[in-house]
Amino acid sequence: MQVTIQDLANALNARAWGDVSMQIDGAAEPGQAGPGQIALAMSPKYAEALKPGACAILAEGMDPKDYGLSAAIFAPRPRLVMAALTRSFDAGPDIAEGIHPSAVIDPSAEIGDGAAIAPFVQIGAGVRIGARARIASHVSIASGTVIGDDALILNGVRVLHRVRIGDRVVIQPGAIIGSDGFSFVTPEESGVEEIRRTLGKRETIRRQSWERIHSLGMVEIGDNVEIGANATIDRGTIRATRIGSGTKLDNLVHIGHNVVVGDDCLICGQVGIAGSSVIGDRVVLAGQCGVSDNITIGDDVIAGGAAKIFSRVAAGKVVLGNPAVDMPTRMEMDRATRRLPRLAATVAKLQKAVTEFVEKP
Amino acid sequence: MQVTIQDLANALNARAWGDVSMQIDGAAEPGQAGPGQIALAMSPKYAEALKPGACAILAEGMDPKDYGLSAAIFAPRPRLVMAALTRSFDAGPDIAEGIHPSAVIDPSAEIGDGAAIAPFVQIGAGVRIGARARIASHVSIASGTVIGDDALILNGVRVLHRVRIGDRVVIQPGAIIGSDGFSFVTPEESGVEEIRRTLGKRETIRRQSWERIHSLGMVEIGDNVEIGANATIDRGTIRATRIGSGTKLDNLVHIGHNVVVGDDCLICGQVGIAGSSVIGDRVVLAGQCGVSDNITIGDDVIAGGAAKIFSRVAAGKVVLGNPAVDMPTRMEMDRATRRLPRLAATVAKLQKAVTEFVEKP
Amino acid sequence: MQVTIQDLANALNARAWGDVSMQIDGAAEPGQAGPGQIALAMSPKYAEALKPGACAILAEGMDPKDYGLSAAIFAPRPRLVMAALTRSFDAGPDIAEGIHPSAVIDPSAEIGDGAAIAPFVQIGAGVRIGARARIASHVSIASGTVIGDDALILNGVRVLHRVRIGDRVVIQPGAIIGSDGFSFVTPEESGVEEIRRTLGKRETIRRQSWERIHSLGMVEIGDNVEIGANATIDRGTIRATRIGSGTKLDNLVHIGHNVVVGDDCLICGQVGIAGSSVIGDRVVLAGQCGVSDNITIGDDVIAGGAAKIFSRVAAGKVVLGNPAVDMPTRMEMDRATRRLPRLAATVAKLQKAVTEFVEKP
Repeated sequence: MQVTIQDLANALNARAWGDVSMQIDGAAEPGQAGPGQIALAMSPKYAEALKPGACAILAEGMDPKDYGLSAAIFAPRPRLVMAALTRSFDAGPDIAEGIHPSAVIDPSAEIGDGAAIAPFVQIGAGVRIGARARIASHVSIASGTVIGDDALILNGVRVLHRVRIGDRVVIQPGAIIGSDGFSFVTPEESGVEEIRRTLGKRETIRRQSWERIHSLGMVEIGDNVEIGANATIDRGTIRATRIGSGTKLDNLVHIGHNVVVGDDCLICGQVGIAGSSVIGDRVVLAGQCGVSDNITIGDDVIAGGAAKIFSRVAAGKVVLGNPAVDMPTRMEMDRATRRLPRLAATVAKLQKAVTEFVEKP
Repeated sequence: MQVTIQDLANALNARAWGDVSMQIDGAAEPGQAGPGQIALAMSPKYAEALKPGACAILAEGMDPKDYGLSAAIFAPRPRLVMAALTRSFDAGPDIAEGIHPSAVIDPSAEIGDGAAIAPFVQIGAGVRIGARARIASHVSIASGTVIGDDALILNGVRVLHRVRIGDRVVIQPGAIIGSDGFSFVTPEESGVEEIRRTLGKRETIRRQSWERIHSLGMVEIGDNVEIGANATIDRGTIRATRIGSGTKLDNLVHIGHNVVVGDDCLICGQVGIAGSSVIGDRVVLAGQCGVSDNITIGDDVIAGGAAKIFSRVAAGKVVLGNPAVDMPTRMEMDRATRRLPRLAATVAKLQKAVTEFVEKP
Repeated sequence: MQVTIQDLANALNARAWGDVSMQIDGAAEPGQAGPGQIALAMSPKYAEALKPGACAILAEGMDPKDYGLSAAIFAPRPRLVMAALTRSFDAGPDIAEGIHPSAVIDPSAEIGDGAAIAPFVQIGAGVRIGARARIASHVSIASGTVIGDDALILNGVRVLHRVRIGDRVVIQPGAIIGSDGFSFVTPEESGVEEIRRTLGKRETIRRQSWERIHSLGMVEIGDNVEIGANATIDRGTIRATRIGSGTKLDNLVHIGHNVVVGDDCLICGQVGIAGSSVIGDRVVLAGQCGVSDNITIGDDVIAGGAAKIFSRVAAGKVVLGNPAVDMPTRMEMDRATRRLPRLAATVAKLQKAVTEFVEKP
């Protein structure tokens, strides 16, 4: 897509400078930008590689003349500009319009107007897919599932039966929505139940095996949700597993059965949330976090990378570490632990001094 | 499926009360249960939402008259009742009987009686699949693999060549059985070998690259095993990677090459077990646990969430934390670490007091 | 493949002994080796199970007569011998030569000489695939992607658009190359930006939602790379995500957008590397390691199992733990933490002694 600098500035809600009629059709880093590409130089550090005559996006306060630019756009909030800019230049995946003849679609399925369905897609009985949905190759959508308008479902995604998905959802390749929950029970009290009761003591170790609790519940996903590559979301046992509108899940995230995730959350790569836990709105879980089963994380909680959350977290808290505790507490604990070998040496010396002093004749 | 309260109670091996001829065809939470649905209210907390005239499953000791129920079933062990109940009402995935014409099946493959094979399935040479197996869309099963009776293999599962799988196995979507092991060697001693020998000292840093050790072994999976969505099980190098009967693996679990997992284990979401480790029977590894390579975990071990196990664990132990240690030890360590900043302050004050006292004229 | 002991010794660059004309066609563990199979007994511990008359690979210094062998090969570096040996006996996956009629290949795609393409493969417009590539069933390769010679791409792999992959690459089943980066921005400062600025203090909690930053960059993968089952590699935002030649990625590894991984690295199972981080050459990250976003790991760094790396690591360092620190420091910290409850008791006693002594009349 080709646009002028002025058009792009308008789209970005930003100020343009210089030869604003210049045509561009892409963006690149300052060192790589060729003809027709706008350079992204939103800090002086990156701007050093700009070539004279280039056009660039700068941060407010930078001077295009310092770099010999021919045109510039000033970004008030650089990453926000990136959102608008990359949206402008994203051609999207190349899924041909219409339905590929190799697709196997149940006659009772309803496919919305303008939907594109790629090769080797299977769509089950009673499925409803919204308008302008794009379904890439090798996707399967099982019976009774409903998907909203403008969905982008990438290659090899599995949406199982009776899942409900809102509008404008993006599902990256290989994600699984609606697998069975991991829920098993032993005929008598299991070892896990015993140690939860005794806080770690095993009195009776029995030879017993697991009975499966089947997953009759569904998965409900709101609008504007994104689900990462090879992520997995299990269906609920009786009620639904739920992902709120505006929430984004990264690659390889695992959402257990019955979990409820609120709106506008950011669940980063390889996070796992165990069964029946409830996550509030606008929660951010950084990469590799873990959340135990049956606990509640309040609204606006932020958990740092690899935080392991074993108990309730109140709204608005920032937690770090394993086990996860308040950020300032964790930072103090980590600092103290690093000094612990020295502390132990100090105590040993003190003990010697005190003993000698006390025993002094 | 429609059953009477009395029939359901019989199936659950439980006691019925009230209008036991009432017909039901599903289960729901107390607040959601509609006509024909039995409410699951197995603790007084959940029972508050029960509607008068409803039928419900209650825990022993609860009184159906307190909630104005018309019928009830008493669950001696609620989760066990859930197993039987959900099994009764699970319609299962909708894989049409017979073999879909789009499936590509090698003429030398043997498909058991009553098997259902969905669209876009590929089955290789010499494969044998048991009776009543249900194979969902997009599954591939490579040459020489044998799968038992009553298997349920969900969408997009990859079973590679020469894998042996028992009866009544459930494999969730996207799981990979029989990928190559991650096994590489450098021409001379590698950095990892050096630091294992020197406990962390690098004397020689060489520029060298990795030679691949190919995986000639197979994967053997027992009966009644369940494997989670997008889980991966690597094949052995020379011998087989093995998963014992009755063991359940959750989503995104990683089982390295040559690993042996015993019977009736529960391996929860995102657990990783590195190459050649041996896990006993009835072991429970909670979510995000890690097990180092070449170690042994005894029978009946339970590891808490995100425990990282770097060395042998004796049978029957309960371990927590990173590095994983005995549960009471870890709880004491965590408590002490939380108090560590205060301890450090105490020691500083003590040191000052002692110095002053000792130096007092 | 059948070879003589002498031929095999030559291929392994090793010394043969005894009946070197003996024909073999496979390898096995000492207890399992049958006729025609060479036993792998490269330490006296394994050699005990050898049967008289067998042939075996031994370590230098072991005596074949001690075990009554009829032939032997002496391995100077056992695991290196395993590489050559397993390569000799690996028949490879059974992908029939030529292009299966069910494959959907865009007419503009170029397929190299001798390539094998299995059922249900989709190949997009402008794709170029090198000579002798083997593409297993259900793989999709999107438009504009280039893959080198001798690639082995296993079942259900997704290579998205405009990815560049070198020669002799192995991609295990279910891996995703070129999914969109996980990159979102809020209109005003987000909670995460706020706590990075304030080190954990939340002053303003706003209700706001995430704007998507689209991924216009590509993925570039060098020669001789291996990518594990169900691993995911996101494309860059503007520049490319890069994996250097000779690097090996294990199962369920997550590589974020813009990440650069150097040559000859070993990235083990379930490791996650967050966006824009840079990993040097010959880095080893053991299983379940995590690397924060926007940091640099120098050449030849080794990180132990489940190490969580939050800040820059200098070249050649060995790091362990969460947070990751130098190996000797971490070992000392862990030892001291284990003794911490005892230390606290000592301090309490000391405090009592000092108080009593000071207050003594």
